[in-house]
Amino acid sequence: MRPKCISILGVGLLGGSIGLAVRSQLPGCRVIGYGHRRSTLDEAIAMGALDEGYDQLLPAVRDADLVILCTPVGLELAKHLNPKAVVTDVGSTKRSIVQAAEELLHNPEQFVAGHPMAGSEKRGVQFARADLYDGALCIVTPTPQTSPDALETVEGFWETLGMRTCRLSPAEHDRRLADVSHLPHALAAALVAMQDKDSFALSGKGFLDMTRIAGGDGALWRDILLDNQDNVRRSIQRLQKQLDHMVALMDSNHHEALREWLDQVGARRQRIIDAKPKG
Amino acid sequence: MRPKCISILGVGLLGGSIGLAVRSQLPGCRVIGYGHRRSTLDEAIAMGALDEGYDQLLPAVRDADLVILCTPVGLELAKHLNPKAVVTDVGSTKRSIVQAAEELLHNPEQFVAGHPMAGSEKRGVQFARADLYDGALCIVTPTPQTSPDALETVEGFWETLGMRTCRLSPAEHDRRLADVSHLPHALAAALVAMQDKDSFALSGKGFLDMTRIAGGDGALWRDILLDNQDNVRRSIQRLQKQLDHMVALMDSNHHEALREWLDQVGARRQRIIDAKPKG
Repeated sequence: MRPKCISILGVGLLGGSIGLAVRSQLPGCRVIGYGHRRSTLDEAIAMGALDEGYDQLLPAVRDADLVILCTPVGLELAKHLNPKAVVTDVGSTKRSIVQAAEELLHNPEQFVAGHPMAGSEKRGVQFARADLYDGALCIVTPTPQTSPDALETVEGFWETLGMRTCRLSPAEHDRRLADVSHLPHALAAALVAMQDKDSFALSGKGFLDMTRIAGGDGALWRDILLDNQDNVRRSIQRLQKQLDHMVALMDSNHHEALREWLDQVGARRQRIIDAKPKG
Repeated sequence: MRPKCISILGVGLLGGSIGLAVRSQLPGCRVIGYGHRRSTLDEAIAMGALDEGYDQLLPAVRDADLVILCTPVGLELAKHLNPKAVVTDVGSTKRSIVQAAEELLHNPEQFVAGHPMAGSEKRGVQFARADLYDGALCIVTPTPQTSPDALETVEGFWETLGMRTCRLSPAEHDRRLADVSHLPHALAAALVAMQDKDSFALSGKGFLDMTRIAGGDGALWRDILLDNQDNVRRSIQRLQKQLDHMVALMDSNHHEALREWLDQVGARRQRIIDAKPKG
């Protein structure tokens, strides 16, 4: 089902970019936004990301057949939803929101959690772009309870915006994202934090590339790390094992094995790059 | 003293780029190269990086007043050098080469170790560029034995090629570079090594940025890590402390402190970027 009216709850970089992309890819679809600040809603309307904007939930969601959570929303959402509405989200962790939806929504089978892997260190609707999602991957995390029609609606929606989609369980999503995203973020932060001022002056492009993701929003990353802390801890331990292995290779007389390990890692990384669809 | 004849031992990306830059910035200076492979020397001559190229040390160094080591060179170098020649190098670690020079050279006070912080994941003279060094930082590591004139010659040389220079002791260089370069490299490698294939498919731009430096040359990085392994070990321990601190903040009820830590790290990184001279 193609949505005729979508509601975007939270109109920042992610929500605003959804609005712009829908206006471009789904002409005729009504786009409603919800947010706390009137000025943000007005800006989103002025830039063509929304048709209408409300600071109350009821008018923002009652007509929507697809509701997209781009900000934490309280309990009251449930009572305002159209019972047939499909609901999705854009958060970076999935177990907790799936659990909350199952507890709070009247029709949890209509909820399909999603993680469009697009974004930027920049925040705010002023940085929204119609092509933010184009070519990137959206992970959806259905459960055995999820309605197949709702799943198809959400996957079809992101594909209309140019995304590739894949399905994982909420638990697998959170485990793998700890490895490829949350741990790297924590590491980048720790790498900056451990430096003294004089060492910074010696850092080159490699260091800045490596710590780029440490420039993100502290409150957002705190929430991600806390929400996924069991997996992040395990990821830290697995990284530590690799470092221990490397130190053991330095210790031993297996210096050829150290070179092989480094070369294999480089070749593995190159294979990832080669395997990526060109976005 | 401006060199009238320089000898570049090892004509790859670094040595070839020195040749191109000298030909552009020091017209009239004779540029001699040394390498094992005739074809590489011929390529370097054809692209204008060298005036002459030899696969024997004697003709490559006997006339040079500045000799630049861009490859490991054996004992026999000492006996071919002009006694007044100033010698420098471009290696990523400094304690071991300074010690070797003191033991092997007849005039160790003429040796000034250097680390021009420029390069690329690419290897080979075909990637050499006249502007590789322009705007980047060159660390020189004199000792109390170093001749002030030799130090001035080496600093002046790199500055002629557009570099900024700074002085550190060999020990301080190796300690700080472990923090800002060698540990980040080891971490990038460990981060790639710990992933399974399915997680790779979920990695985004942040992961690829963060692991870019893991794409380097395994043999080169093995040598760096081994040569600086005491410092690299200590850097790993200091990073581990930061991760422990972060985990403790997740554990405790100090979630506001976790946000503050993340925000401070982001702000610190931004200050590094703001403080960098525009290259």
